[in-house]
Amino acid sequence: MNPSSSLSTPQTMEAIVSLAKRRGFVYQASEIYGGIRGFWDYGPLGVLLKNNIRDWWWRCMVECPPVGPDGKIVDMVGLDSAIIQHPKTWEASGHTATFADPMRKCEKCGHILRADHYWDILTTQSKWFDELIKATDNGSKTDPDTLIRWVKNKARKSAPNLAANTFSNFAPPPNPDLHQLIRYLADQQDPCILCGGRLGDPEQFNLMMISYAGLQQTSENLVYLRPETAQGIFLNYKNILDTTRVKVPFGVAQVGKSFRNEVTPRNFIFRSREFEQMEMEFFCPPDEALKWYEFWKHQRMQWWLSLGIAPSNLRFRDHEPNELSHYSKATVDIEYKYPFTAPDFGELEGIAHRGDFDLTQHQKYSGAKLEYFDQDLQLRLKEQGASQDEIRQKSRYVPNVIEPASGLTRAVLVLLCEAYRYDESRPSKEYFAFKPRFAPVKVGIFPLVNKDGMPEIAEKLYLNLRKRLTCEYDPKQSIGKRYARMDEIGTPFCVTIDGETTSHQTVTVRHRDTQAQDKVHLSQVEAYLLERLNDESTSSSI
Amino acid sequence: MNPSSSLSTPQTMEAIVSLAKRRGFVYQASEIYGGIRGFWDYGPLGVLLKNNIRDWWWRCMVECPPVGPDGKIVDMVGLDSAIIQHPKTWEASGHTATFADPMRKCEKCGHILRADHYWDILTTQSKWFDELIKATDNGSKTDPDTLIRWVKNKARKSAPNLAANTFSNFAPPPNPDLHQLIRYLADQQDPCILCGGRLGDPEQFNLMMISYAGLQQTSENLVYLRPETAQGIFLNYKNILDTTRVKVPFGVAQVGKSFRNEVTPRNFIFRSREFEQMEMEFFCPPDEALKWYEFWKHQRMQWWLSLGIAPSNLRFRDHEPNELSHYSKATVDIEYKYPFTAPDFGELEGIAHRGDFDLTQHQKYSGAKLEYFDQDLQLRLKEQGASQDEIRQKSRYVPNVIEPASGLTRAVLVLLCEAYRYDESRPSKEYFAFKPRFAPVKVGIFPLVNKDGMPEIAEKLYLNLRKRLTCEYDPKQSIGKRYARMDEIGTPFCVTIDGETTSHQTVTVRHRDTQAQDKVHLSQVEAYLLERLNDESTSSSI
Repeated sequence: MNPSSSLSTPQTMEAIVSLAKRRGFVYQASEIYGGIRGFWDYGPLGVLLKNNIRDWWWRCMVECPPVGPDGKIVDMVGLDSAIIQHPKTWEASGHTATFADPMRKCEKCGHILRADHYWDILTTQSKWFDELIKATDNGSKTDPDTLIRWVKNKARKSAPNLAANTFSNFAPPPNPDLHQLIRYLADQQDPCILCGGRLGDPEQFNLMMISYAGLQQTSENLVYLRPETAQGIFLNYKNILDTTRVKVPFGVAQVGKSFRNEVTPRNFIFRSREFEQMEMEFFCPPDEALKWYEFWKHQRMQWWLSLGIAPSNLRFRDHEPNELSHYSKATVDIEYKYPFTAPDFGELEGIAHRGDFDLTQHQKYSGAKLEYFDQDLQLRLKEQGASQDEIRQKSRYVPNVIEPASGLTRAVLVLLCEAYRYDESRPSKEYFAFKPRFAPVKVGIFPLVNKDGMPEIAEKLYLNLRKRLTCEYDPKQSIGKRYARMDEIGTPFCVTIDGETTSHQTVTVRHRDTQAQDKVHLSQVEAYLLERLNDESTSSSI
Repeated sequence: MNPSSSLSTPQTMEAIVSLAKRRGFVYQASEIYGGIRGFWDYGPLGVLLKNNIRDWWWRCMVECPPVGPDGKIVDMVGLDSAIIQHPKTWEASGHTATFADPMRKCEKCGHILRADHYWDILTTQSKWFDELIKATDNGSKTDPDTLIRWVKNKARKSAPNLAANTFSNFAPPPNPDLHQLIRYLADQQDPCILCGGRLGDPEQFNLMMISYAGLQQTSENLVYLRPETAQGIFLNYKNILDTTRVKVPFGVAQVGKSFRNEVTPRNFIFRSREFEQMEMEFFCPPDEALKWYEFWKHQRMQWWLSLGIAPSNLRFRDHEPNELSHYSKATVDIEYKYPFTAPDFGELEGIAHRGDFDLTQHQKYSGAKLEYFDQDLQLRLKEQGASQDEIRQKSRYVPNVIEPASGLTRAVLVLLCEAYRYDESRPSKEYFAFKPRFAPVKVGIFPLVNKDGMPEIAEKLYLNLRKRLTCEYDPKQSIGKRYARMDEIGTPFCVTIDGETTSHQTVTVRHRDTQAQDKVHLSQVEAYLLERLNDESTSSSI
């Protein structure tokens, strides 16, 4: 295998999930209770990785927003709105009516699955399907005898409700492909992946998780866990205009958890029921919306590249006209080549031109005035000699919105995939080559042996360095094992205090990627590290 | 009023809430839909203030944990567990059985209120009580005539179900205090605060908010929104031991949202239904638990002092034996003198000695082995010449836990209260004197006038400084107004680019608290500010 590039096979995904668990990045939630589907806990290293991405996004969006297409620094503020909002929010946004997936329910056993993912779920999650594949030699032996044997024996147990169990006349088509075969065995139906029973027609199930605010579980108290952070921004659009110094165009950014009742959460933390988003809504004059759409599309791609992702693993995918929400004038996805989609790509961030849909809806449902009076535009139009009518008409508007919406937990997944390396020649065959800015631990600090005055020097160095950099101090095990462990968790630098430190005041600095070792004077270690981490850790250029 | 100290009256609380709204710290959630009780949004400045507190806690607990009573640096790791966990979690923790408040329901109108806060709720939230207070001249005119007049007129409308409405014989006790008077008017009952009706007996209502993971709202799919972050730590105790290098004693810290179905959310963000916690569980050998309890009690008080809170506004309050949970061996609260509790104090953080209760419960409910084999202790006991029996017995144990549990959103409230100043003599009479480390904006950067080359210099300075410090650039309004606004939001420094900048390369640095102005050379501004913010912003000593 190629040691210096990230790999993209399902096997790699398994290796990444396993290493992520083994080194404390991501645990299955409630593992000691057998887990709970679609929920994940971020362990000691996972939370550091996630915080580093979160802080970098916040820094690039809120603290150091870019210079806009007009040459002015973009106006941007942060927000942290509640997960639970007034239920009317979701009526206005359209979520109660349309935020749904098509589901089919087994008429025999009651199992529910996503209609539009049927084949994918059947081929990856069905026990009887696995058996069938085995019995037919990967679908190559499909003569009636083989099939009848499987139906009469195994299938009676594993797929008791499969129609074929009751066939009096067994006549599969000659050389069927898998899809044809399944349809034949199920009497031209899609069979349940659990029991083989007949699935009902697709029905829309809303994906919002519900709760009750108030002690009684009445419709009056019904609330929703937000399925996106975006609506909290729209609700506060007017508050922010009224209480800060921003003017249109401006953006509001927030990071926070959202919940979706995914029926088939899967692919590790790619599609989970509880996840964390980083969303921004950019409010602009309707005439300028396309300009800002192009601007943010470009900016967001640059941002993902700033995480150290290979350009060949990222791409834009414009939504087809028939994919667009009815209100969206244009949407583009930034996609990543995940190990489980490769050679294809999967969704990472969506940048949507939402027009004035959201503000207009909230205006309608709340009765609040969300129109904006644009004094600057009024002045500009006057200067341009526009007519009174045109000035009046154009300088009052409901802003258009450009929404770059991405997943923080999905970004964690992407960095785990992107940074994963396999190299037989190294003491730790697997490691994470994170860009230093995102590495959970920046520096490992070790006394070569846990005596001879070395621990004292190492501890002192640790106490000093940890004020500026996330460090780990580890005095035990062989130095090789400690290096290997630091490689595995993606630590870019290790500093070892050895015999030469006590005699000559020099330490050994080891580089993760090259495994090269430098001798550095103890008094210069901080400067040495900061210089090498500097471009990575403190620069804001993207 | 005293301009240099924080004030503690209910009026102050109103002023703080109002300023916090007006300047974008805290908004009522879903305000455009009339709000939703017990939920709050953190605006552009509120989220910065909250993040600054969060990051400081994380830094002090996870990145730079203190040196323990044994002289060793404390082992500490972070975590971010899911809000929704397997429901058995809450059976094991005791929350499904006992996390409840006593509630009383009005037999007439169905209103539910907290039994143990009855008097407080009546006197602050009842419309008819307000009327009665008015009619009786603050409770001083309680002769039968006055009372009968109120009962026959106003009370018929505002408290239609008050027993007094039906009295044939009107005979209140002579000179009753308010409590006696109410009891008389309600025929020796506690009347409903809304309609005056009779309240039923107290019943226990569970405070956990529910949801369903899975499309169908069945008992099988029932889950809870965590009422505390702590249990997520206990669930991962074994994962963390297995996948990191920590050994007992060690701590696990996490920050995150929790939910409680408070019946009477109140006092601004003090008691809300959605809130953010900062909790740490410290696992230690049973023999050392008391030592660590004392250690963390002290550490946590030092931490609150490091936020700049006046020592006189903080105190310890040991829980009385009858207040302790059955499993807790000792608990102490750190309390703060809130404007709405003054001169009394209210809860801010609890430090609990939880014994081995939680791990033992999860061990019992999950079947997982959560015992710890302490090799270091085994060695020490051997060296001390302990018997084989004693060594065997003592070196295997379920760790005890010390839990310092505090509220991040409550910390925001405390800093808003603590930093609030009122000073008639200043251009902005109200302002927030935040310790610089926590100020949402560290530096305001202004061109004196928006021309003559000043904006260009100011923008350049802003683009440079914002890489290290949260800055705001504001080119408009009179300089006095811009200073006043920065005072109001608690910005410690303002830098003004004026005529002398273009001629002599000096800028004016204004200090928030003293309003003093220094001339500083443009090339020295960054160093000047960092030096003055340095102790505050980058030191980790507490």
